[in-house]
Amino acid sequence: MAWSPALYLKFEDERTRPARDLLAQVPDLPDGVAFDLGCGPGNSTELIRDRFPEATLSGLDSDENMLVAAAKRLPGVTFEKADLANWVPPAGAALFYGNAVFQWLPNHLTIFERLMAALASGGTLAVQMPDNLGEPSHLLMEETARSPAFTDVFAGKTIRRNPMPSPATYVECLAPQAAGIEVWHTIYYHRLANAEAIVEWVKGTGLRPYLDAVPEDKRDAFVADYTDRIRAAYPAMSDGKVLLRFPRLFIVAVRA
Amino acid sequence: MAWSPALYLKFEDERTRPARDLLAQVPDLPDGVAFDLGCGPGNSTELIRDRFPEATLSGLDSDENMLVAAAKRLPGVTFEKADLANWVPPAGAALFYGNAVFQWLPNHLTIFERLMAALASGGTLAVQMPDNLGEPSHLLMEETARSPAFTDVFAGKTIRRNPMPSPATYVECLAPQAAGIEVWHTIYYHRLANAEAIVEWVKGTGLRPYLDAVPEDKRDAFVADYTDRIRAAYPAMSDGKVLLRFPRLFIVAVRA
Repeated sequence: MAWSPALYLKFEDERTRPARDLLAQVPDLPDGVAFDLGCGPGNSTELIRDRFPEATLSGLDSDENMLVAAAKRLPGVTFEKADLANWVPPAGAALFYGNAVFQWLPNHLTIFERLMAALASGGTLAVQMPDNLGEPSHLLMEETARSPAFTDVFAGKTIRRNPMPSPATYVECLAPQAAGIEVWHTIYYHRLANAEAIVEWVKGTGLRPYLDAVPEDKRDAFVADYTDRIRAAYPAMSDGKVLLRFPRLFIVAVRA
Repeated sequence: MAWSPALYLKFEDERTRPARDLLAQVPDLPDGVAFDLGCGPGNSTELIRDRFPEATLSGLDSDENMLVAAAKRLPGVTFEKADLANWVPPAGAALFYGNAVFQWLPNHLTIFERLMAALASGGTLAVQMPDNLGEPSHLLMEETARSPAFTDVFAGKTIRRNPMPSPATYVECLAPQAAGIEVWHTIYYHRLANAEAIVEWVKGTGLRPYLDAVPEDKRDAFVADYTDRIRAAYPAMSDGKVLLRFPRLFIVAVRA
């Protein structure tokens, strides 16, 4: 399944808040190009443009659908297809901004070092990654996949990402090239309509690799099973709504 | 011991970041007075004034020293002594902003309901509270107090605050009067010079009630014992610095 810009943008307000929170900690930029890495449908690129209207902007993504949506949204910006795992960053950049993308790349520590080296002095590496593998929303994907009905489907397959390194690991990695580093977690509590809304949310991101692995005729059953588990793990409040607890890691490092 | 503005402001950059993060989520204000509750030495009041230069501002604190420091910093603002536990908020307020103060008041849920009721429609209750009682920095204060050398001093005394209610409890409490609520935790990782800097940090806040309880001739011994424990719990990174993990809870509720 390709990425769906419409599904991803279904929770645009909630998904944009972390992108804003990240950008709020980026200091003024030196000369050079500002890159939105994993720009998706361009919502984060638009935030960068609003914050730094004078900067030359470039958006990169590996998904054609997302690039088409982004170019439609921001006709004045250059969007290019790139695989961040192997992308060679041009020297003298002003900003590498990666919102909710590097969690997909297991070697992102190495990539961060490379990006830091390519920044102009005073330029910023700004990264936000979901850190929610330990949340019920994600543990229950794995539980569903390992349940009797799907044992055969997932036999020998590893979908789950590795846990993220500790904040200290990122600080140790970036400190040698940095004039300053800020690292923090924010745990958002999104107030969503009901358990089904949580399922819709993760369908746009974390549930995708699981659904990709399930044969089409079993997908509805997988989603139904997973939804039952979500309903039990996220009890309704008095008004029927649920709170989706969503931890995210933020890193902002300024090049010395 | 009275509060020390100088010691509190020693880590002004780090302590001001949460105040800024809170303010960044406050929407435009309706007409009415904006209150900085527990204004301390006025650093948060100054942020509010910069963000809402047209608003009529009022700062409240229970500590004389802090009020003197605040009035010196912001000559144009009204500062008044008040005990927030019993303070009766005037109706029609535009903003009640409480940065790092309500954690000291065990009945703050009741206070929040009262503040919400006193807001003008479209006004905001914005609150940030340290949620760090489970961190080594705070568990080790308790461990030191219960160690053989200090058993007599702390016998029968309860210094430790109660744990905070869950985010869902705050949402349930405020939802009936709110047009919208945002709740989140941010866990800051402050990069401090060494273990001693962590001790200096908490001396300005959480360690104070413990030191108040210790007779003067035993205070140095208490701090030395506590510092040893901190040193073991916060190992130095390659550059000798330590990361102080500091979780804080944020609540922003807009009155319906």
